[in-house]
Amino acid sequence: MTKKLTILGSTGSIGTQTLDVVANEPDRYEIQGLAAGNNAALLIEQANRFRPRSVCLSTKALAEEAAPHLPAGTQVLYGEEGLVQIAADNDADTVVTAIVGSRGLKATLAAIEAGKHIGLANKETLVTAGHLVMKRAAEKGVSILPIDSEHSAIFQCLNGETLSALKGITLTASGGSFRDLSRDQLAGVTVEQALSHPNWSMGAKITIDSATMANKGLEVIEAHWLFGLDYEDIHVLIHPESIIHSYVEFVDHSIIAQLGLPDMRVPIQYALTYPDRRPSPTPSLNLAKQGALHFREMDLNRYPCLRMAYESGRIGRSATTVYNAANEVAVARFLEGAITFLDIERVIANVLERHSVTAVPDVAAIMEIDAWARIEAAAV
Amino acid sequence: MTKKLTILGSTGSIGTQTLDVVANEPDRYEIQGLAAGNNAALLIEQANRFRPRSVCLSTKALAEEAAPHLPAGTQVLYGEEGLVQIAADNDADTVVTAIVGSRGLKATLAAIEAGKHIGLANKETLVTAGHLVMKRAAEKGVSILPIDSEHSAIFQCLNGETLSALKGITLTASGGSFRDLSRDQLAGVTVEQALSHPNWSMGAKITIDSATMANKGLEVIEAHWLFGLDYEDIHVLIHPESIIHSYVEFVDHSIIAQLGLPDMRVPIQYALTYPDRRPSPTPSLNLAKQGALHFREMDLNRYPCLRMAYESGRIGRSATTVYNAANEVAVARFLEGAITFLDIERVIANVLERHSVTAVPDVAAIMEIDAWARIEAAAV
Repeated sequence: MTKKLTILGSTGSIGTQTLDVVANEPDRYEIQGLAAGNNAALLIEQANRFRPRSVCLSTKALAEEAAPHLPAGTQVLYGEEGLVQIAADNDADTVVTAIVGSRGLKATLAAIEAGKHIGLANKETLVTAGHLVMKRAAEKGVSILPIDSEHSAIFQCLNGETLSALKGITLTASGGSFRDLSRDQLAGVTVEQALSHPNWSMGAKITIDSATMANKGLEVIEAHWLFGLDYEDIHVLIHPESIIHSYVEFVDHSIIAQLGLPDMRVPIQYALTYPDRRPSPTPSLNLAKQGALHFREMDLNRYPCLRMAYESGRIGRSATTVYNAANEVAVARFLEGAITFLDIERVIANVLERHSVTAVPDVAAIMEIDAWARIEAAAV
Repeated sequence: MTKKLTILGSTGSIGTQTLDVVANEPDRYEIQGLAAGNNAALLIEQANRFRPRSVCLSTKALAEEAAPHLPAGTQVLYGEEGLVQIAADNDADTVVTAIVGSRGLKATLAAIEAGKHIGLANKETLVTAGHLVMKRAAEKGVSILPIDSEHSAIFQCLNGETLSALKGITLTASGGSFRDLSRDQLAGVTVEQALSHPNWSMGAKITIDSATMANKGLEVIEAHWLFGLDYEDIHVLIHPESIIHSYVEFVDHSIIAQLGLPDMRVPIQYALTYPDRRPSPTPSLNLAKQGALHFREMDLNRYPCLRMAYESGRIGRSATTVYNAANEVAVARFLEGAITFLDIERVIANVLERHSVTAVPDVAAIMEIDAWARIEAAAV
């Protein structure tokens, strides 16, 4: 059966790799919608190759500029409304949410309302509104299939097992670009240094998040929602080689782990073919060639962004929305050269401190809190 | 529901650990039968604790000696016939076959005929008669649940997956007692040196088999039958720490591995509780404390016993029966001090060379070939 896909964020790292997976077995997929931000040139190229029914760009101007270069009959949408429309209004059975940041939330909720399964690469959606997303997905009977390599690993390890037998999960962390630096050495690091990740080739935001360990913090919160686990059952372990992508431990002390070379096309494809597996052009792991795998304890004092994620997660309600929004703004400011690397954690801490946690928020409240946190984070 | 068990080989390493598992949750199990070899004292102790309906010892004399010390009403069986009877003639739903060597075959087949599931620790059964055992098990609708740590690992990794998506499996090997010795250094090793395994505490025969890598060879053949895999899809990797117990690779290059501290009670319990998992008193693995895991290619020239196992397996029919019988006798002779460590591989090679492979053998033919190989192996 052909899988009908819409990809939100098709020109980004996950989006382009999702299209690589599609291109590898083109007969198994049909592209219904492609949504990009500002990269109109690449979107035009993708649209001419994959022939979606509709595309979306961030602004009206970009949409008008792109229109003449698109295949005849392609619907051209734009802006936040266009994103919501492309996520919901077509025949896609699955929407891959590969947009970075909490702005993917409304479109993800719209896709769920329309009864579409979600291939979730946008972890901020669950961090900022996990209670709403998981609840509506359960009510609508749609699956939230993880695309993050760690969560895909956990998902694969739990295949065929019962959650009641689960003792806990461990997300592995490479340690990011600066894993061998002391706190003192971190003070002077540059944007360029932060952007060179040792194992994974990813977008800028997630690469910085890996260096601060905020990415692992977001993943911990995402895992809490995806798998319904308490925070004390979600562990993080430093594993510099990123070969064991994560693992689960059962009550009998048997551990099931998922391994592979770091290549996002494997978890992306698994989300698209689940419960089947299909051949992949990705390289195969040779453990003898790898020689050794290393592990060390995660130190929450070395990585305050991870510590604050656990704290926000345990507080729950609006705290994780604030954590995420403050982090997004702080990373953007660091990438612009406006603040230093260690300022990222300072910004998050300051905004969290100023926030009064609300009752369980609805979408409108989340948007408001998110906006407030962004204003605060831009100023501190 | 109570699980009703018979244990063949209850006083050996796997047998006693199976009873440890039972003792940990006594309400979940009922012991129907316990069969030992010559260790009447331990069998008496076990019978008084676990109250089986029947017990079995190797000889009539031992049985008569033990009888007065057993709980009133315990049926006392002996010899090969007694073993077959205890395997088949009671209310057990599962028979754990923890006897060492191919003499477990008839009892295993009798248990299968009686419709009992098999917890298989006796790998020689499948090596010598895999085609018969798997065929009858399928026809009778009984499960062959692996207890070997490697095969339990593969079984756990395949849980919830489809065999058609499987690319291959890799059995890990610690390398045994002599993994750091050269071929030249192997010439002079003693029985005592051979019996000190770096990771696992096991019986004498399997410990020697680990040092020669014949154990891994038997496991490769066992995996061929258990999982229906071609020999080219069964790989062996040296992994000195024995933490990754084995793993599977799927066509999408995702690898699922089972890990844990080396403790046979985990795979034993899994075979008894499958598809559920139950809490275990075994220690939990801490990978950070472990620090590192190492891997290196298996060298078939360094380990001719493994090479010959692959060769015998590929030839099939009676070849693996001969391989197994020759190895059993050679190991016994080494343990008696009659031959040197490197003679073990020489004996196997000689007997294999003298054997003319027959058509697919039935039980009678297997017994005959097995007997012939033992006579040959005792003489060369």
